[in-house]
Amino acid sequence: MNLKTNLNNHERIDQLTAHGVQIIQSPEVFSFSLDAVLLADFCRPAKRADRRIIDLCAGNGAVGLFISHKTAASIIEVEIQPRLADMAQRSILLNGLEKQMSVLNLDAKQIFSSVNKDSVDTVVCNPPYFPDLEMSKKNPNQYLAIARHEIKINLDQVINISSQLLKMKGKFFLIHRPDRFSEILALLSQAQMAVNQVRLVYPKANRPANMILVEAIKKGSQQGMKFLPPLVVYDQNNQYTTAVRQMLHGK
Amino acid sequence: MNLKTNLNNHERIDQLTAHGVQIIQSPEVFSFSLDAVLLADFCRPAKRADRRIIDLCAGNGAVGLFISHKTAASIIEVEIQPRLADMAQRSILLNGLEKQMSVLNLDAKQIFSSVNKDSVDTVVCNPPYFPDLEMSKKNPNQYLAIARHEIKINLDQVINISSQLLKMKGKFFLIHRPDRFSEILALLSQAQMAVNQVRLVYPKANRPANMILVEAIKKGSQQGMKFLPPLVVYDQNNQYTTAVRQMLHGK
Repeated sequence: MNLKTNLNNHERIDQLTAHGVQIIQSPEVFSFSLDAVLLADFCRPAKRADRRIIDLCAGNGAVGLFISHKTAASIIEVEIQPRLADMAQRSILLNGLEKQMSVLNLDAKQIFSSVNKDSVDTVVCNPPYFPDLEMSKKNPNQYLAIARHEIKINLDQVINISSQLLKMKGKFFLIHRPDRFSEILALLSQAQMAVNQVRLVYPKANRPANMILVEAIKKGSQQGMKFLPPLVVYDQNNQYTTAVRQMLHGK
Repeated sequence: MNLKTNLNNHERIDQLTAHGVQIIQSPEVFSFSLDAVLLADFCRPAKRADRRIIDLCAGNGAVGLFISHKTAASIIEVEIQPRLADMAQRSILLNGLEKQMSVLNLDAKQIFSSVNKDSVDTVVCNPPYFPDLEMSKKNPNQYLAIARHEIKINLDQVINISSQLLKMKGKFFLIHRPDRFSEILALLSQAQMAVNQVRLVYPKANRPANMILVEAIKKGSQQGMKFLPPLVVYDQNNQYTTAVRQMLHGK
């Protein structure tokens, strides 16, 4: 396969060496961030080939691609922006994963026209983190604005759609900002999902958390929240910690 | 002062060298644990001499004694068990803090007979962590059973009493188990308190959290929860980390 013919202007191919996954990126449009790597590491997807996983708000498909080595289940990337969905589709081909993975280029709010309710085993989601703002404060790049701000979908919708997609006892994996944790808990509870495990991500050991990873179970029992060991991203010398280096580059 | 005359059978005097506070303990009845040190460190009490602080479920008074150097405010220790309240009272005298500190030996549920509602600036509380169990599973030592299990007071009551005691914008500082965090958040919200800051305590860097420190504000705005830097108690060699050694022994 001539990779060059698959790349559009300003696109490049990056590799997550930990899993040998290659991914088509474009700084102009969308590049996966550490968040996608953290979420893929945190996610414990259903494993069997007859199971189904959905990566909601998939962007260029990074999270789904990164978890593909953990599971034999089918993985559906759901992305509203055509240009990002196209990048995800080409990355799937680039990695020879077309039998396991597919892309749905549609608004997540329309997903039930393509995927039945109560039919999914695992939903993984790296949604827009920030409330929709007046135009003046948003990223002028529309691709990035939609990926980062709740313009096309908000947290309430993400959580409700995920809950409806999941089978009973299906699992939901979310990465978000810790300052919205109260809201996340309230919305999960309203959507009949119970938080099972949480992991706080701290940029440095002496800094407040800037990310939170949440695992919730549809109609799970509210039997106690477990806070997994802290994940610290940078050491005192501003280098990635061993834990993060292993996620990025393997051992 | 002849200290020996102040000690009952099996009691001893321990010192928290970080602040020079001496505290009367009894392994048979009650000894403060690291939890009290963590909570005192986390607490940001009102400072002025005309302010009022309550240490609810005070035990032998450790938390109130440990925060006394941080504030000029009056500190009231509230403890239901007469023998523990008496130890707290003698520790106050031992440290010459009788002008700043006092003890109320009563059931916290009866506190409004002694302290007005909406009159307290800071409530600090290290409550019983575990649900009340059938007798067979509880600590046969009644002093310890009451301190550890929700026999005389439960979490709902602790949070409601604290909220009623506090002035508008008064602060509540709680240490508890992370597996009850969902319940803590729901009860705080019902009691019109908003979580402001949280700190997770991890026994080791690679272990799940086993304690959570919570700061809430009465009628505060629900504007986002801040997760302070992680507190790790033991290093890889099972020695206290620098952060904990500083709390216990100063720099």
